[in-house]
Amino acid sequence: MHGLASEIFPFCRSITGDGVRETLRRLKLDLPLEIHEVPTGTQVFDWTVPKEWNIRDAWVKDPTGRKVIDFSESNLHVLNYSRPVHGRMPLAELDAHLHTLPRQPDAIPYKTSYYKESWGFCLSHAQRESLSDGEYEYHIDSSLEDGSLTYGEVYLPGRRKEEILFSAHVCHPSLANDNLSGIVVLHHLADWLAEIDRAWSYRFVFAPGTIGAITWLAQHQERLEGIQYGLVIAGVGDRGGFTYKRTRRGDSEIDLLVKRALRESGSSFELVDFTPDGYDERQYNSPGVRLAMGRLSRTPYGTYPEYHTSGDDLDFIRPESLSGALEVLLRVCSLLETSPRFENLSPRGEPQLGRRGLYSALGGHRDSDERERAMQWILNYSDGEHCLADIAERSGLRLQILEDVANTLVENELLDLLGEA
Amino acid sequence: MHGLASEIFPFCRSITGDGVRETLRRLKLDLPLEIHEVPTGTQVFDWTVPKEWNIRDAWVKDPTGRKVIDFSESNLHVLNYSRPVHGRMPLAELDAHLHTLPRQPDAIPYKTSYYKESWGFCLSHAQRESLSDGEYEYHIDSSLEDGSLTYGEVYLPGRRKEEILFSAHVCHPSLANDNLSGIVVLHHLADWLAEIDRAWSYRFVFAPGTIGAITWLAQHQERLEGIQYGLVIAGVGDRGGFTYKRTRRGDSEIDLLVKRALRESGSSFELVDFTPDGYDERQYNSPGVRLAMGRLSRTPYGTYPEYHTSGDDLDFIRPESLSGALEVLLRVCSLLETSPRFENLSPRGEPQLGRRGLYSALGGHRDSDERERAMQWILNYSDGEHCLADIAERSGLRLQILEDVANTLVENELLDLLGEA
Amino acid sequence: MHGLASEIFPFCRSITGDGVRETLRRLKLDLPLEIHEVPTGTQVFDWTVPKEWNIRDAWVKDPTGRKVIDFSESNLHVLNYSRPVHGRMPLAELDAHLHTLPRQPDAIPYKTSYYKESWGFCLSHAQRESLSDGEYEYHIDSSLEDGSLTYGEVYLPGRRKEEILFSAHVCHPSLANDNLSGIVVLHHLADWLAEIDRAWSYRFVFAPGTIGAITWLAQHQERLEGIQYGLVIAGVGDRGGFTYKRTRRGDSEIDLLVKRALRESGSSFELVDFTPDGYDERQYNSPGVRLAMGRLSRTPYGTYPEYHTSGDDLDFIRPESLSGALEVLLRVCSLLETSPRFENLSPRGEPQLGRRGLYSALGGHRDSDERERAMQWILNYSDGEHCLADIAERSGLRLQILEDVANTLVENELLDLLGEA
Repeated sequence: MHGLASEIFPFCRSITGDGVRETLRRLKLDLPLEIHEVPTGTQVFDWTVPKEWNIRDAWVKDPTGRKVIDFSESNLHVLNYSRPVHGRMPLAELDAHLHTLPRQPDAIPYKTSYYKESWGFCLSHAQRESLSDGEYEYHIDSSLEDGSLTYGEVYLPGRRKEEILFSAHVCHPSLANDNLSGIVVLHHLADWLAEIDRAWSYRFVFAPGTIGAITWLAQHQERLEGIQYGLVIAGVGDRGGFTYKRTRRGDSEIDLLVKRALRESGSSFELVDFTPDGYDERQYNSPGVRLAMGRLSRTPYGTYPEYHTSGDDLDFIRPESLSGALEVLLRVCSLLETSPRFENLSPRGEPQLGRRGLYSALGGHRDSDERERAMQWILNYSDGEHCLADIAERSGLRLQILEDVANTLVENELLDLLGEA
Repeated sequence: MHGLASEIFPFCRSITGDGVRETLRRLKLDLPLEIHEVPTGTQVFDWTVPKEWNIRDAWVKDPTGRKVIDFSESNLHVLNYSRPVHGRMPLAELDAHLHTLPRQPDAIPYKTSYYKESWGFCLSHAQRESLSDGEYEYHIDSSLEDGSLTYGEVYLPGRRKEEILFSAHVCHPSLANDNLSGIVVLHHLADWLAEIDRAWSYRFVFAPGTIGAITWLAQHQERLEGIQYGLVIAGVGDRGGFTYKRTRRGDSEIDLLVKRALRESGSSFELVDFTPDGYDERQYNSPGVRLAMGRLSRTPYGTYPEYHTSGDDLDFIRPESLSGALEVLLRVCSLLETSPRFENLSPRGEPQLGRRGLYSALGGHRDSDERERAMQWILNYSDGEHCLADIAERSGLRLQILEDVANTLVENELLDLLGEA
Repeated sequence: MHGLASEIFPFCRSITGDGVRETLRRLKLDLPLEIHEVPTGTQVFDWTVPKEWNIRDAWVKDPTGRKVIDFSESNLHVLNYSRPVHGRMPLAELDAHLHTLPRQPDAIPYKTSYYKESWGFCLSHAQRESLSDGEYEYHIDSSLEDGSLTYGEVYLPGRRKEEILFSAHVCHPSLANDNLSGIVVLHHLADWLAEIDRAWSYRFVFAPGTIGAITWLAQHQERLEGIQYGLVIAGVGDRGGFTYKRTRRGDSEIDLLVKRALRESGSSFELVDFTPDGYDERQYNSPGVRLAMGRLSRTPYGTYPEYHTSGDDLDFIRPESLSGALEVLLRVCSLLETSPRFENLSPRGEPQLGRRGLYSALGGHRDSDERERAMQWILNYSDGEHCLADIAERSGLRLQILEDVANTLVENELLDLLGEA
């Protein structure tokens, strides 16, 4: 995953344009990913798809003609969505277009101006301080034209029509944790899911933050009912422990499943309640949408110094952190795939387990056996409201045992698997 | 407020009669107060408006002809609602009509016999002990005749038809904390509210305890639906910290607002759950009425020695305690007036805040900004179920910021203020 | 109760057969108990009533012809539901039919094979170890034939049609705590209830575990709606404190009443949440039945070494433990009988208590009187959702006072007793 992150790190992603397109094309090499283009001007809920931004080159030359800022060295150097400009002006005047972080003098900030036409350069405060006065030449070879917003979607149909949604934002340029980490982890998760026989259908949305999620929601309104719940993945590459932000409902099945997966993974983690800020969980949990979408991150965004700076580079994300996040998601998906929801077909009293050989006909066991309790829990709670992992969380019984027992009960026509086509 | 309390302290209030009438007339000098007379015999729910009681004089003379008990010194000396009597009897016989507090030998108790015809005198136990045997002359120049029950009502219409109800009992004679404190605080609150441009409509009920509240409820049955919630104010003049008794529902908006106001006021306070005893919150929260009425008091009634004795006098209540209570209510009303309930008009995903200039179009702020979070909280929770102060309590964000942001969102047609005409 | 337990201890109870029949006949001597026979082959939900098992004699003789195992000494010696056999085989071969408890070498285990035809003997491990090799003669004079399953039912009609259900399993042979303790305690409870004028109707089910409860449920489907809630009684004779397992709902009125009764009894007790294992509460709380049935036990089954062994004998159960359990149930029934549910007939405001003489017309009591608060609590909470014991639990007021006050309120036509015919 770290290798894939390295490959796509240099692409100059934004909310539209070739950087996103290149990124998605790279993902498409390994995945059944559909790339959707939504034309500039399309109305998406309250928003309008903006003009497409592309950039080829950008630089600033000092009075001696030396390039002191060069887009080819880091695409963070350009204020994202800068309009094309070329000219000369004294440093004092140019200064209004230079963005730095005085408190982190060695870091280049990441800045954007998506919805207000502007232009500018970002550089380290140390470099800014070293510039001497004089006439500077500046050049941004960009375009802001009618085009489209691009998002990628992987749909992996399963035996159930109900979908589990995963979403990662793809709009930031050379920032590794935010959100190459989410992209590459979901890429690998989708790759893994594509190969298995799926009980659930899965949908992966790789879209620019905010406008991309909103575009996707607007174009899938009729599909939202079919989405069971899902997760936003962002910022999972740093060294920190996990932070799981619950869905707005707070006790959606996905909240239980992620909790279980985190515990099973042995990672340190913290569970936090929903707040309407953050990444695209804002859109998915908005009052007119109400999808139950949690978010898996490591260190919360905005709380680490590298956030939205050149410090969020490929060294900042750790292969083991990425694989740890993938592992948690694989555990969630394993739970999802293997943790079915049943209907007890013999709900009045207990069914006769003995005549079906379901426990040794030789009764009188001294200790209450976990397997027997598993049967009892499953039969009692299989009223359509509790999946097996939910029952596991309630009962404290091992999921393995519960699964095993449930399969036996299905074979014996005591349970009917809900949701299978 | 203490001055007003001093003015009305001497009036011999009861559940009917001129004492209440005089009190209300005094309040009417400053307030648009309507005085209602409900005739004796009127059926009010399960009750009947009783005969009107008035008293001009009352005394007891000892065997030497000296007035040992004199109504003109304290109206507590007469058992409230005593019928007219005049006669002589030996002290041993008169004793059945003398009420004292042996455990508080210097205090005159406050006693009533509203619904059972009786007569009697109240005096300090010390004085009772000092009386020598012999023939005593007693005299009560009162009347118990068909008349009316009097209550006062201030209605302050606002832009919303929904009313906030404040209620104070006015039946007790010369007791300062119970409930001149509530009367004068509500008098000042009404005075203040009368001057402002009101979002909500307010109704103040100054009525005798129990029978007065019931009479008011019975005569306003068709209006009860329009009452959002409210507060009973009683016993807010002593030195103690506040006690807020929640509505029966326990999580009504008024409960949150009072909690917020108390915290903001910096006063010490305790929150207690509803119980069906106490003052007129009993009537308002009764099962056939179900108004959400909390009660603000200081030291709980019945737990201070001055309660229902001559010790509850003008020295017992403190100007700073009265003004502290008024301050809390002003804070509650400020919250009410400024803490609207909105409907998110763009509930699917987030609306495009940037194109409306709602936050700097220059994105990429490093820290999550409180104002931005405020927008997110308001937009996400403006589903009609959460007013702004509720959102403030949930989010921990400053109400000032939330209000500011909400106004902006309204201007931008992203929110619709619910409840405005 | 211990004497009755001693009388029925020797009967060889099983899920069918004369042991149960004899047990029920003994109970019928004192109780209006109906004995029901449900023929072999009857379909009861998912189950079929099995063949009836009876046994007259069983033994094993060692190579010298000495009886080393003798059913007449303990009916635990035979694997319950053993088919008739007679023959000879070497000890090594017979061993497959011998059941012991190596960890409790002196105890005879209790073993069954109800639904799989089998035969066997149970003996102490010490005895097994002492047997010398050689040819053994074995003999089981039993029968497994079409017959019936027998259960007993006591129905005690009350003024209300709604029934309270008590259930004890009667299938185990000479085990005292499991469940002669439950049988004799319910026997005495039924005896006591039979003598009183009952507000509620009561039903006692003495049935074999699992199949008996299921048979009863299957044959009373149309009656289940009329069952308010109930209790399973099992394992209440040992020295341990009480364990009360809540109904699946967890806050059913019976859960509150048992909690109250346990507290009042002064016994040590623990409250545990419902789990779908255990005794017949499994059947009653199954998803297609959903009766609110808690379970009262002492030491939880399976956690004491004597469980399902010859150690669970008449010495293991204590007269004082049995009477302690009976006392708790009598308390529960007393609460049930005396803790009615009312409708406030004057729910708008408080009714006028004074004119009815409901409290001293002489007002102004200094302390809030418990009786007055009781009136207020009852009137406020008598909305059909709270019985008097529930109100007692909420208010912390004494039930005696609440009852007294409620009776007065009924007499004054302020309350209507709900549920009376």
